[in-house]
Amino acid sequence: MDIKQILLASRPDGMPDMNNFSTTTATLPDITDGQVLVKPVYISVDPYLRGRMKEEKSYIPPFRINEPIESGGVGEVIASKDSRFREGDLVIPTGKKPFFPWATAAIFTGDTLRKTDPGVPPTYYLGILGMPGLTAYFGLMDIGKPKSGETVVVSGAAGAVGLVVGQIAKIQGCRVVGIAGGPEKIRLLTDEFNFDAAVDYKDNLNISAAIASACPNGVDVYFDNVGGPVSDAVMEHLNFFARIPVCGSISLYNSTETPTGPRVQPTLTKFSVLMQGFTIGNYAGRYHEGMQQLVEWVKAGKIRYRETIEEGFDKLPEALLGLFSGRNSGKMIVKV
Amino acid sequence: MDIKQILLASRPDGMPDMNNFSTTTATLPDITDGQVLVKPVYISVDPYLRGRMKEEKSYIPPFRINEPIESGGVGEVIASKDSRFREGDLVIPTGKKPFFPWATAAIFTGDTLRKTDPGVPPTYYLGILGMPGLTAYFGLMDIGKPKSGETVVVSGAAGAVGLVVGQIAKIQGCRVVGIAGGPEKIRLLTDEFNFDAAVDYKDNLNISAAIASACPNGVDVYFDNVGGPVSDAVMEHLNFFARIPVCGSISLYNSTETPTGPRVQPTLTKFSVLMQGFTIGNYAGRYHEGMQQLVEWVKAGKIRYRETIEEGFDKLPEALLGLFSGRNSGKMIVKV
Repeated sequence: MDIKQILLASRPDGMPDMNNFSTTTATLPDITDGQVLVKPVYISVDPYLRGRMKEEKSYIPPFRINEPIESGGVGEVIASKDSRFREGDLVIPTGKKPFFPWATAAIFTGDTLRKTDPGVPPTYYLGILGMPGLTAYFGLMDIGKPKSGETVVVSGAAGAVGLVVGQIAKIQGCRVVGIAGGPEKIRLLTDEFNFDAAVDYKDNLNISAAIASACPNGVDVYFDNVGGPVSDAVMEHLNFFARIPVCGSISLYNSTETPTGPRVQPTLTKFSVLMQGFTIGNYAGRYHEGMQQLVEWVKAGKIRYRETIEEGFDKLPEALLGLFSGRNSGKMIVKV
Repeated sequence: MDIKQILLASRPDGMPDMNNFSTTTATLPDITDGQVLVKPVYISVDPYLRGRMKEEKSYIPPFRINEPIESGGVGEVIASKDSRFREGDLVIPTGKKPFFPWATAAIFTGDTLRKTDPGVPPTYYLGILGMPGLTAYFGLMDIGKPKSGETVVVSGAAGAVGLVVGQIAKIQGCRVVGIAGGPEKIRLLTDEFNFDAAVDYKDNLNISAAIASACPNGVDVYFDNVGGPVSDAVMEHLNFFARIPVCGSISLYNSTETPTGPRVQPTLTKFSVLMQGFTIGNYAGRYHEGMQQLVEWVKAGKIRYRETIEEGFDKLPEALLGLFSGRNSGKMIVKV
């Protein structure tokens, strides 16, 4: 079978652009016993993919030059030699590397696939019930440990993870303040997602003052998705024993030099603050627990979700680049 | 009774100097029922006192201008109207503010004093069995959680806290690397205190390379007493799931501007690193546990200690300033 693939053509130096990607064709062999041929229907694009475009030691190995990018996705079985799957089944990859290559079809062994639940919109497996939802759940509950009445601030609040963090924090009885860029996202947070307040970092010359006025009792939990000056501003308003789940640093991913900023150590000591970096893989043994809780909240209408869906396989690179300009509200997905 | 006092004359801007202190005389009233008159014998000087010279929100209120500095100490009872104490008893302050004013005598209520154990050298209450020892114990054991075979790096390693951290880490079966300034301290660490390696930050143009070679298996626990470039260098060699008890930032205490440096967030996320700021007051409910363990190790000869003792009440300001040039090995104390 002839397929189209999107490869990493070169490693970006700073902000990635279309030249870092290339498109090619290839031919898949026929599937053999135990194998399943899958056509992606939805492919996820996520900020952490930027890290895999670099050559560096991290929790996940870098992409290789001239090999397909890969990320999460939902696919449709188009041929199967594993009795558990048949044509038309919607599946997600669940193996050690739970990814789709950026290709119009791919071969999996049946052991590394799982059927989706027909009662759940399939894209939810990429967002609220997938990596971003679990990241929000474990980062907030396990590291942030929000208590009723506390103030929780989340940056990247209108993104795939941030929207879930805010809603879980509301369920915990917290005052929830989101930081996002642009009036549309601010309205989304306060009007549609019931955040108590939202700070527009693109519109505030003095983010620190805006955070202070949105957090009259200081900040007890800061769920950090962005790093950089936005996080510096939040750090000025931490309460004693504040907790900071450090989830990502999207504002720094495209720096060409080591990013510098105010040192955090004096603040950590003065106020006995915790910063804990994490990735969702740390919670692999507890996915079931998180999934169950998220499904319960979604079914009870306590958590809603938002997706930005771009159409067309060829749009994948552009959608990924769009994350860094904040083009998405909620989960960014490409419908193939 | 006429006494001499050392006051905070002005708040330092940057490195403190003798002009920030003044000496005055005062007269103490006669003691009344329940009170005890105490003459300090040993007064402790500690890096955290620099923070109290500033006007800022922190875990402990600032000193006031034209009032006595205060810090830990061991004193001798010279008059008592509390039946639990008599002339000649050695005592330490244990109240909510467990401090001596920098004065040649002071009045306490008996409830805020405790007699020292005659089996223990009295200065140990200011070091190994006092605030620095407990800081080392809880910071390392409760936050660092060292496991046998892991590598523990401690900065400020030849100081009052660092020497204890290194020895406890050895007891836990770790490879222990100390960072300190100058050949004398390096020899102290490796020859007298059995550190596995020591890095002289004053002698190394490339501290990062020196740390790499001292830590062939990377760094699992970094007990941070200093902040600044030394800590930046250690951060480059952290292992996955490293823990960083952030105890102090002596290298930054005298900065006149907000100190800047490489941002830590990307490292924290990539390697799932924990940074936890703390002060010993967080463990107030567990002092007894820490003390018991430290006494056991000291009596068993598993932990030894080092003190730098300056003589004369008037030497207090100079001894405090000496901490910032690293004049001390181990605990800095003034014998009044």
